Amino acid sequence: MGSIAPSPAEIDASVVKITRSTNLRDVPLPGSPEELSHSYCTDHMVTVRWTAGNGWETPEVRPFENLSVPPTASCLHYATECFEGMKVYRGYDGKLRLFRPDCNGERLVSSAQRTSLPAFKFEELKVLIAKLMQIDGPRWLPKDQPGRFLYLRPAMIGNGPHLGVQTPKEALLFIIAVPWPDPSKKKPEQAGGQHGLKLLASHPDSIRAWPGGFGYAKLGANYGPSLVAHGKAQAIGFDQVLWLFGEDRQVTEAGASNFFVVWENKQSGKLELVTAPLENQLILPGVTRRSVLELARTRLNQSCGKLAPVEVVERDFTIGDVHEAWKEGRIVEAFVCGTAYFVTPVKLIRNDDVDMNMLDAGAERAGYAAQIKSWLEAIMFGKDGAEAHEWGYVIEGESQK
Amino acid sequence: MGSIAPSPAEIDASVVKITRSTNLRDVPLPGSPEELSHSYCTDHMVTVRWTAGNGWETPEVRPFENLSVPPTASCLHYATECFEGMKVYRGYDGKLRLFRPDCNGERLVSSAQRTSLPAFKFEELKVLIAKLMQIDGPRWLPKDQPGRFLYLRPAMIGNGPHLGVQTPKEALLFIIAVPWPDPSKKKPEQAGGQHGLKLLASHPDSIRAWPGGFGYAKLGANYGPSLVAHGKAQAIGFDQVLWLFGEDRQVTEAGASNFFVVWENKQSGKLELVTAPLENQLILPGVTRRSVLELARTRLNQSCGKLAPVEVVERDFTIGDVHEAWKEGRIVEAFVCGTAYFVTPVKLIRNDDVDMNMLDAGAERAGYAAQIKSWLEAIMFGKDGAEAHEWGYVIEGESQK
Repeated sequence: MGSIAPSPAEIDASVVKITRSTNLRDVPLPGSPEELSHSYCTDHMVTVRWTAGNGWETPEVRPFENLSVPPTASCLHYATECFEGMKVYRGYDGKLRLFRPDCNGERLVSSAQRTSLPAFKFEELKVLIAKLMQIDGPRWLPKDQPGRFLYLRPAMIGNGPHLGVQTPKEALLFIIAVPWPDPSKKKPEQAGGQHGLKLLASHPDSIRAWPGGFGYAKLGANYGPSLVAHGKAQAIGFDQVLWLFGEDRQVTEAGASNFFVVWENKQSGKLELVTAPLENQLILPGVTRRSVLELARTRLNQSCGKLAPVEVVERDFTIGDVHEAWKEGRIVEAFVCGTAYFVTPVKLIRNDDVDMNMLDAGAERAGYAAQIKSWLEAIMFGKDGAEAHEWGYVIEGESQK
Repeated sequence: MGSIAPSPAEIDASVVKITRSTNLRDVPLPGSPEELSHSYCTDHMVTVRWTAGNGWETPEVRPFENLSVPPTASCLHYATECFEGMKVYRGYDGKLRLFRPDCNGERLVSSAQRTSLPAFKFEELKVLIAKLMQIDGPRWLPKDQPGRFLYLRPAMIGNGPHLGVQTPKEALLFIIAVPWPDPSKKKPEQAGGQHGLKLLASHPDSIRAWPGGFGYAKLGANYGPSLVAHGKAQAIGFDQVLWLFGEDRQVTEAGASNFFVVWENKQSGKLELVTAPLENQLILPGVTRRSVLELARTRLNQSCGKLAPVEVVERDFTIGDVHEAWKEGRIVEAFVCGTAYFVTPVKLIRNDDVDMNMLDAGAERAGYAAQIKSWLEAIMFGKDGAEAHEWGYVIEGESQK
């Protein structure tokens, strides 16, 4: 009789092993150096170990600590690593919520597979996060402080000790939670402050992604090589690079966020909300991007307060198109969106030597970004009748300790 | 009087701090499971810490151990990481040698800067390696076993705790030494065994590098995303992917090595040694590649034993050119080269559904790869009159303990 090898185990978040920290850290105040450092985490973290032979091991919630990584580990040499950016929100109804966590779970699996890391049942990601926040939520996002959030960073790395260039045989999924400055509370002179972002269009000698590459996956490999251009842009006063692609200089995405413009269509004269498409796999399929598109399609297809209806379009457009619209006064507004920057207006775009002011031209007709942001905030923070919106995932069972 | 801020410190390998291991490991036998695992390192490692404020700290040679990495570290999320592949050789004259280590030092600095990591004085790399091998050389490469080598892996990572997407503020340069299987001792049926490598030409839906990208830098970001295609190729019996680029399907490089072909030029009828050029920055500027070209230009420009003279050419060529030459019987031989694979013949290339046998067609005229390999080996292992070749860097002062 032949024996049948058991299939490698799946992640089962329901059986998580919990080890509580006995040395709780101070919770940093909003705006404190600890918060601004983006390096100060909550008391616990989630880890789930995987091996090619046995699959996923029992998930753990355990005290936050440094990882012990072999100097030969794949993630340190071959960038076998991917991540997600999420937030957990303390609602005005006192509840903790995630925003569309299954979208992040699905994308994390897609990213992992693009860099040869293991898949898992994506629905488990939100449950693992819930287990973490049941413990850290009450202290780090007190119930009496609605409107606050923590940044969540699920990540997967190839951490086995095999130095050969090959598919990782061991991996670690981990989740950490980080107090993060609130972009809506920034001072006007700070990046993303009320005056909006300044974007520097990329030079043709540096591109972020290419067809047949991995621009659509949230891989570390998309970030490290972009930091030189990002650093140069910041050094001359810009917040983000606006990444262009191809000889026609298509507008793809801005730094670590998706880019939108509202303009008057040159041919039809109608208002359009435009963003780059997903089909050519150059840009990240942002969860906020998708939500902006869905809200715009369902709620902005008719007049909304002072806002005229817009047509919502995902298609290629070039920096030349933006320039032409700007010269002709057809720009209404531009904004970026993503988890880190949420929905933030764009103040200025510099392309070659031309500075295009995005705020003034269409100011009378603008307000789409602000409207969409407000709808999203209502869902994230459980207010204005959006307490039970299907995009909000409520974390029940917060610890009483 | 104003004070002048001191410049950040440079690496000074002459002042290395040495902490010896008190728990020496067994040296694995050639061909043992430990050696084949590519994960078993020598007793010590080099580490040099860098911070944006103070520059490079005192280098250390210390007992090999896992690294303690913050879960928020840049290298785990944004692939701020680069590396080199080198070897240290035990010569037939009893000496330890590196092969052109300044070339690796220069490239490591170039790679680091492409991903926003700090530069250093590249000449120090070889001295740091010497310090490591002065201690580990005698046990791990015994003097009475000439012809053996260790694989060396210098690497740099962004290991500070700041999770924001930004230029790393902390970094670690480390060097480890790993017993590695000798490719020339592989069995015929193993990858790179005497029958040569089987290469699978890449599909247009998967592209390794792009102009304006970072294909020329030895970044982790070039490797992780290539592992899916590599794994698929291995699953159907191939050793490496032959990466093509562009609509005309230019031949760029093979897996983790550079690709060469010797053929009869269609127009002139003369023999040529051809490889992809560096100018478009798509391929890695291999140290072995460069050495192959230099030896071929200086020693193969006239008849050499049974080998006819060849013209040495770096230029774009396509898989269609290779196919045409193969159909017309103009292929003499093909090979790949790099530190890991050294100089290894290519047995077969599959492109779409066509299998091109590279070994038989030109067998009578072949032998260039073997000749070049033999010249290189003489330099690396200090034999055949190449004991004092300028490409060999002798490590003096091996520990007597």
